[in-house]
Amino acid sequence: MSLSVAASTQALSAEKAARLLDRVRKAAPRVHCITNAVAQPFTANTLLALGAVPSMTIALDEVAGFAASADALLVNLGTLDDERRQAIPAAIRAAKAAGHPVVLDPVFIDRSPGRADYARDLMGMGLDIIKANEAELNALFDTRDGVDDAISRGAVFAITGAEDKIESQGEDFRLINGHQLLVRVTATGCAAGAVLAAFSALEDDKALAAAAGLSVFNIAGEIAAERCGGPGTLVPELLDALYQLSPQDIERRLKTA
Amino acid sequence: MSLSVAASTQALSAEKAARLLDRVRKAAPRVHCITNAVAQPFTANTLLALGAVPSMTIALDEVAGFAASADALLVNLGTLDDERRQAIPAAIRAAKAAGHPVVLDPVFIDRSPGRADYARDLMGMGLDIIKANEAELNALFDTRDGVDDAISRGAVFAITGAEDKIESQGEDFRLINGHQLLVRVTATGCAAGAVLAAFSALEDDKALAAAAGLSVFNIAGEIAAERCGGPGTLVPELLDALYQLSPQDIERRLKTA
Amino acid sequence: MSLSVAASTQALSAEKAARLLDRVRKAAPRVHCITNAVAQPFTANTLLALGAVPSMTIALDEVAGFAASADALLVNLGTLDDERRQAIPAAIRAAKAAGHPVVLDPVFIDRSPGRADYARDLMGMGLDIIKANEAELNALFDTRDGVDDAISRGAVFAITGAEDKIESQGEDFRLINGHQLLVRVTATGCAAGAVLAAFSALEDDKALAAAAGLSVFNIAGEIAAERCGGPGTLVPELLDALYQLSPQDIERRLKTA
Repeated sequence: MSLSVAASTQALSAEKAARLLDRVRKAAPRVHCITNAVAQPFTANTLLALGAVPSMTIALDEVAGFAASADALLVNLGTLDDERRQAIPAAIRAAKAAGHPVVLDPVFIDRSPGRADYARDLMGMGLDIIKANEAELNALFDTRDGVDDAISRGAVFAITGAEDKIESQGEDFRLINGHQLLVRVTATGCAAGAVLAAFSALEDDKALAAAAGLSVFNIAGEIAAERCGGPGTLVPELLDALYQLSPQDIERRLKTA
Repeated sequence: MSLSVAASTQALSAEKAARLLDRVRKAAPRVHCITNAVAQPFTANTLLALGAVPSMTIALDEVAGFAASADALLVNLGTLDDERRQAIPAAIRAAKAAGHPVVLDPVFIDRSPGRADYARDLMGMGLDIIKANEAELNALFDTRDGVDDAISRGAVFAITGAEDKIESQGEDFRLINGHQLLVRVTATGCAAGAVLAAFSALEDDKALAAAAGLSVFNIAGEIAAERCGGPGTLVPELLDALYQLSPQDIERRLKTA
Repeated sequence: MSLSVAASTQALSAEKAARLLDRVRKAAPRVHCITNAVAQPFTANTLLALGAVPSMTIALDEVAGFAASADALLVNLGTLDDERRQAIPAAIRAAKAAGHPVVLDPVFIDRSPGRADYARDLMGMGLDIIKANEAELNALFDTRDGVDDAISRGAVFAITGAEDKIESQGEDFRLINGHQLLVRVTATGCAAGAVLAAFSALEDDKALAAAAGLSVFNIAGEIAAERCGGPGTLVPELLDALYQLSPQDIERRLKTA
């Protein structure tokens, strides 16, 4: 992927990631999550294990208040029913008006044209971080010009895959932590999005926030994958690992390309 | 908190709590739960581990029937969407008409004025137990007179915090079981509310039911916190501990002030 | 239960069940699940542990597209709200038009007359497998003629209980795997329904698919019940066991009557 506006690619330092994790734990930011029905419990538990605080309502007459008083907003397009469709723009407007970052996870827009249209409309609202895999990214933009254009207006893209890429106006990052067993558990990607949102609440450099947040989640996933007996025990082990994650764990395991 | 109608404060006996737990296990009461989307799976599993039976629909045209044929009703105001708003009064009316106790958990009403108004309206419907923390209680009533007034009409308050307080027309209780790791898991408070509902289905003295139910849940939480490696493994360990909880566990661990 | 159209009862062979499990793992069929709010996370994780792929939206304007592009459809009637009521017929039509099998799990229709009426209406849409316990079956049909009639039109019934029975136009099966601790965990039956759907995506003989799918799930449940400390740790152990299940496990444990 060649982006005209992209600057140098830089390795994320373990020290920066660990320092940002420490700041998240100390500040305990509240992340309001409009996320899909399948991901809600795991996402809330991920934020709590991280040291952040979740709020999860999708009710239209409450969501703006919850988003305005939170520190960041996560919008995940899985199970995109009527109530969520109406709540999302209201929540984004409230979060942006209050100066809070917004993370979009356009889940499965490659499988649902209506969902892709909806996601494109959201792009005009000043989103801070878009976390998507290649298929979702291709559904969001007809050409790479769309990505470039969004980046030139300040958006950061966290493009997930075997290798994760963070693309932005400033630094870009290439990240290769994670474990293949994570895809055998539902909503791990959704939960990672919530971690990005928590990190972005504390750090103005949203590319750094995205890189550090994704790395922290994926390192916890690696530790859990080594301790677990399969995808069932992976979930509790991942939450434990995230809760206990030390600067030494990050130093030892962080892999950037 | 000084309540004009409050009588003597009394210690909960381990024997009473264990006997009531035994009655719950033998009777296997069904608790209909209108609870938030995040808490639904954990709440259902908590009731099953306890020996009770959950039913969880929030659909308006079904909820009255489910509430009437259940043995107790739990109303939790998290993720209070339109469907839940409409279902809750219908379920409460059906439960009360059938003579079943109703437990209200007014989650986060301190963060949502509309939700607080909604909760105040419910207070006129003859609720049996209100489980709330101090912030939620302050959002529910402008002054303590409101609490006193509700108590004088028969309501029991289970006020959760570092120390839990049960306030009622009759006996009051001060309870200090629990573990700080419980707040790092989503919906533990919501699940505790379901346990109160199950206990209240079997015991006419609702203050005793609330005190015993809360203590049983918190003791299971303590055992789990000792066995687990963090907030992830706490959840399965808590359900195991609740399932296995013995009179000896209660005897050994119950702490009242 | 005496069915005029039922043919010979035959034992399921471990070899057939293992071979079908292997085909599921290799093909990784996508199962679209319209299932209840309580069961969604566990059902998705069960399919992933099995080697299948879940999609879970219930949104009316998306569900037909998701069902048409999936390999099988699961319809579970728990928490049957308005959105699900509207989505289900649209999803069934789309799945059948695309030639995919549909599995119905009419949860708790014995407790909700409206839900039973709704389920009866669905019976006219050409469902492939109906998974129900005796109480649900009695709510679905006034007399056993209704079951016979549905079977004569090609439906397969997976009747769950202490002994599971598969009844069809062709072979019938009697299956006795499983563990009593499974009923102390919410949504195990719902998750089993998703496994039946995954197996039916790969096997034209729907009675064989239902028998093999149910046995595989119940054998994983037995292994988990032996390894766990209660209903909490049963869940992660069940997913691990399903993920790791070998032909030898099936050979050693499969019990048919």
